[in-house]
Amino acid sequence: MHKIIDIKNLDQISIIGVGLLGGSIGLALRAAGFGGRRIGVGRRASSLQKALDCDAVDAVTQDIAKGVSGSQLVILCTPVGHLDGLFARMAQALAPGTYVTDVASTKAQVVRMAERILPVSTRFVGSHPMAGSEKTGVGFARADLFQLSTCILTPTGRTKPATVRWMRRFWEALGCRTVVTSPDQHDKLLARVSHLPHAVAAALVSLAVPDSAIDLAGPGFADATRIAGGDAAMWTDIFRTNRQAILQAIDQLVAELHSFRQKLDRDDAEAIMKWLTASREARDEWISRRYRKKVLPP
Amino acid sequence: MHKIIDIKNLDQISIIGVGLLGGSIGLALRAAGFGGRRIGVGRRASSLQKALDCDAVDAVTQDIAKGVSGSQLVILCTPVGHLDGLFARMAQALAPGTYVTDVASTKAQVVRMAERILPVSTRFVGSHPMAGSEKTGVGFARADLFQLSTCILTPTGRTKPATVRWMRRFWEALGCRTVVTSPDQHDKLLARVSHLPHAVAAALVSLAVPDSAIDLAGPGFADATRIAGGDAAMWTDIFRTNRQAILQAIDQLVAELHSFRQKLDRDDAEAIMKWLTASREARDEWISRRYRKKVLPP
Repeated sequence: MHKIIDIKNLDQISIIGVGLLGGSIGLALRAAGFGGRRIGVGRRASSLQKALDCDAVDAVTQDIAKGVSGSQLVILCTPVGHLDGLFARMAQALAPGTYVTDVASTKAQVVRMAERILPVSTRFVGSHPMAGSEKTGVGFARADLFQLSTCILTPTGRTKPATVRWMRRFWEALGCRTVVTSPDQHDKLLARVSHLPHAVAAALVSLAVPDSAIDLAGPGFADATRIAGGDAAMWTDIFRTNRQAILQAIDQLVAELHSFRQKLDRDDAEAIMKWLTASREARDEWISRRYRKKVLPP
Repeated sequence: MHKIIDIKNLDQISIIGVGLLGGSIGLALRAAGFGGRRIGVGRRASSLQKALDCDAVDAVTQDIAKGVSGSQLVILCTPVGHLDGLFARMAQALAPGTYVTDVASTKAQVVRMAERILPVSTRFVGSHPMAGSEKTGVGFARADLFQLSTCILTPTGRTKPATVRWMRRFWEALGCRTVVTSPDQHDKLLARVSHLPHAVAAALVSLAVPDSAIDLAGPGFADATRIAGGDAAMWTDIFRTNRQAILQAIDQLVAELHSFRQKLDRDDAEAIMKWLTASREARDEWISRRYRKKVLPP
């Protein structure tokens, strides 16, 4: 059931923060047939002007209350660190029944914050569209950024099922496959498949600097560390807002490396081979599952 | 000084092992203007036939002594584990003055072995062309595989400078930028920028399997773990032939992760940000250096 019509029927959507993600949402909305107004809200006039120039939004304002008023959907696309203040400032201006979501990469803290600050009449559910790149800014925004990507929605006991259904259709209209899980489970799993790999990439680069080892690195190293090119401030926020799960994931990785170290130390060819084969197969299966899911309709 | 003419003047080159690398050398030789015979040597008739079908070689044999006889250059492109026996079997058949190299990813053991087994009249120097991918087999061979890649040559005190110069020109004719270092230094540095990242990628996949966390992984995870898709047998060989340096690199990574863990545990935003920024900048500088070197002539 792919009710794109829901989106076409909306009059106005507000995007708070028009960078790579916010800008891409604006472009994807237009591509998906949304005919209403897209309001861009931001702090810097220059970024807002760029968003207008890219046709990512139809109108802009630096005033958050003005920016959300009259919208049926508000999407927060700012760094996690700014969400606290934004929720507070928009709380008074939201009409009852307004759908609200965010795109933060960590969910437990953000969702707790939203549920504490936003009026109960607000239809809030957290989102994490797993799209984007190490690039930042509306200049890199693309209408197809969400095509074939996964968006994780994180309702709580307080979220109405109808709100989750509505928000799923919204992301699906932009091209996402949607998955639903709790904020805590999201953070626990993402610590292992996103936040830890980021920290590891940064660590691998650190290790490669002495003796100019990095000058002998090849394309494998470039791929393995690409995510270390991401925005340092954004990733500092992500790490800090998912601290416990990441600390635990680091400990798990160290244990895994220790186990490999033992296999290598005792020169156990069979055990090394078995370990590498299991990883290779798990990754291959994942890639083919992703691919299969991608070519089928959501 | 780009004496491609050296290669054009050779009569015959033998490639032992016609997989992705060996096959690509064959194709690149033809593309670089080599007009002599390319002899493919291998164990399986089916692989040799494929190499002929791809025009990666001009003639094939399963007999190593026959395969190297009459060649001015012999390039070993087999897994590290087979080199021992191959050196021994070809030793008698090599004409004095034959240039010999290999493409193994670890060098200290291989070079020691070659210098112990090959006749002193052989002009041997180890090579490590940093090209290839997680793909294997001559079916993926490409004439431009070496274009813009780095080839590390690893002479010892026993290697004549003229042999190193000759072999550099050979790789440069195939499109490589060449770097010269000792076998031990090669292995020490590659442990950090190639072998450790490979083990880490496998470890990250292992960690992502429980609770189906991997199903929430995105393109960043796919890039960070791409190298874990590599051939398990080949990588087991690489790990085992560079054991000490890899054990040390694991310890260094664990120390680096521990240091990040402490920053995160005490919620030190400034220290996390500084660490991420340093990694990001080091990687950016490396990427731009690589790019600069690549567009200039070697």
